[in-house]
Amino acid sequence: MKKIAVILSGCGVFDGAEIHESVLALLAIERQGASWHCFAPDIEQHHVINHKTGDVTEEKRNVLTESARIARGQITDLSTINPNDYDALLLPGGFGAAKNLTDFAINGAECSINTHVASACRAFAQSGKPAGYLCIAPAIIPMIYEAGVRGTIGDDPDTAAAFQALGGEHIDCPVDDIVYDERYNVLSTPAYMLAGSISEAASGIDKLVKKLVELA
Amino acid sequence: MKKIAVILSGCGVFDGAEIHESVLALLAIERQGASWHCFAPDIEQHHVINHKTGDVTEEKRNVLTESARIARGQITDLSTINPNDYDALLLPGGFGAAKNLTDFAINGAECSINTHVASACRAFAQSGKPAGYLCIAPAIIPMIYEAGVRGTIGDDPDTAAAFQALGGEHIDCPVDDIVYDERYNVLSTPAYMLAGSISEAASGIDKLVKKLVELA
Repeated sequence: MKKIAVILSGCGVFDGAEIHESVLALLAIERQGASWHCFAPDIEQHHVINHKTGDVTEEKRNVLTESARIARGQITDLSTINPNDYDALLLPGGFGAAKNLTDFAINGAECSINTHVASACRAFAQSGKPAGYLCIAPAIIPMIYEAGVRGTIGDDPDTAAAFQALGGEHIDCPVDDIVYDERYNVLSTPAYMLAGSISEAASGIDKLVKKLVELA
Repeated sequence: MKKIAVILSGCGVFDGAEIHESVLALLAIERQGASWHCFAPDIEQHHVINHKTGDVTEEKRNVLTESARIARGQITDLSTINPNDYDALLLPGGFGAAKNLTDFAINGAECSINTHVASACRAFAQSGKPAGYLCIAPAIIPMIYEAGVRGTIGDDPDTAAAFQALGGEHIDCPVDDIVYDERYNVLSTPAYMLAGSISEAASGIDKLVKKLVELA
C-alpha cells in the first residue's frame, strides 16, 4: 500500500489547517487505496483566532497539539519524519500554511519557512517523489523547487503576484481542476481559495489526490 | 432546497464534535442537494484534552467558539434556533455529545442534557421532522423520544446497556448501516463507535444522510 505523508498546520481555517480540506484529503487518500500519515511541527501557532468572531485571542496553542484533533491523535512531530518511508507528500491549506508553516500571510514574498517543513518538502522534491499542495499551501512550492516551477493558488491577483515574486510561474486554475508540473512532479489545486462549498473543494482535492497516488 | 440543522459540540473527538464525522456529514448533505446550517450551545466545554497525549489540560474553551472551526465561522448560537426554519436535524458524534451537550460520558443513564439541546431536539421530534444521530450522539435519542425508541451506538455492550437504561431499545448495527425508527422518524448509525477509518465512517454517514434528506 502506498504511504502518503500529510503535513498539517493546526486545526481551523483562520489560524491552522483548513479542516474540510484536511478531512477531504485523508478520505481521498483512503479511497485511492493508499494510507495517510499525519505530521506537524511542534511549534507555537502564530496566533489563535476566535472562529466565531474573527478576533485574535490571548491564547497560546501548539501546532502539533491542535493538528492532532484532525488526526484523532494519530500524528507525529514533523522533525522526526524519515521521507524515505513515504511515497508522496500532501499539504492541505488553511492560514496555518501561511502563518505557522511559513509567514507568507504576514510577509508575502519576503517570508520565511519553518526549517522542518522546508527539510521535509525538499526531501520529497530532491528524490523526485510526487507532492501535492492545496489552497494557499502552494505558496510553499516556489520556496522548495527551482525558479519557474508551476503552481496555482486559484486566481487571486495579489497572491498570484507573490507566488511569482517567490520565483514560481503562477497558472490560473478553476476550483475543480489541478495544475501539474511534470518536471518537478508537483501538483496544486485552489480548494478554498476559490471554493464556495465543501463539495466544490472536494472536486479539485479528489482529482489532485487521485493523480498524486497514481504518481506515488 | 431542504435545510438541515446540524448541532456541533466543539472541535475534536476527545472533547468536542468528531471532526471527520462532522465534515463527512456536511459534505453528504450538500451532495444530497440540501443545505447545512450549524449550531452549537454557547457554553464552556466540560474540559479540554490534548489530542496528541490524551491528557486533560488547564485550558478553558467554549463549545460554540470551537465548533465555529468546523463550520468556517458560519455558525449560530443554538439558543436562538427556530426549528420551524429547518426540515431536519443532524447531530455528529465525538465525546462532545456526551460531555458538552449531555454528561452521558460521566454519568451514564443518570445524565443530564443541556436545555437548549433538549429544546431543539424535542422540537424536531414533536413536529415529526426527521432527525439523525451519529456515533455516540444516539445516546441522546432516549432522552428525547418515548420509551422503546430504537437506535444504535454500534455494539458496545456497556454503552448499549446505558442506552437501554435510558429507555431506548438498542439495536446492534454494523458500521456501514443505519437504524431507522419509522414511528419517530429518527435515524442513527455507529460511525466512529465502530469505524476503523474515515471511509468506513463515511459508509454509514452517507447512508444516513441520504435517508435523512429523503425524509425531510
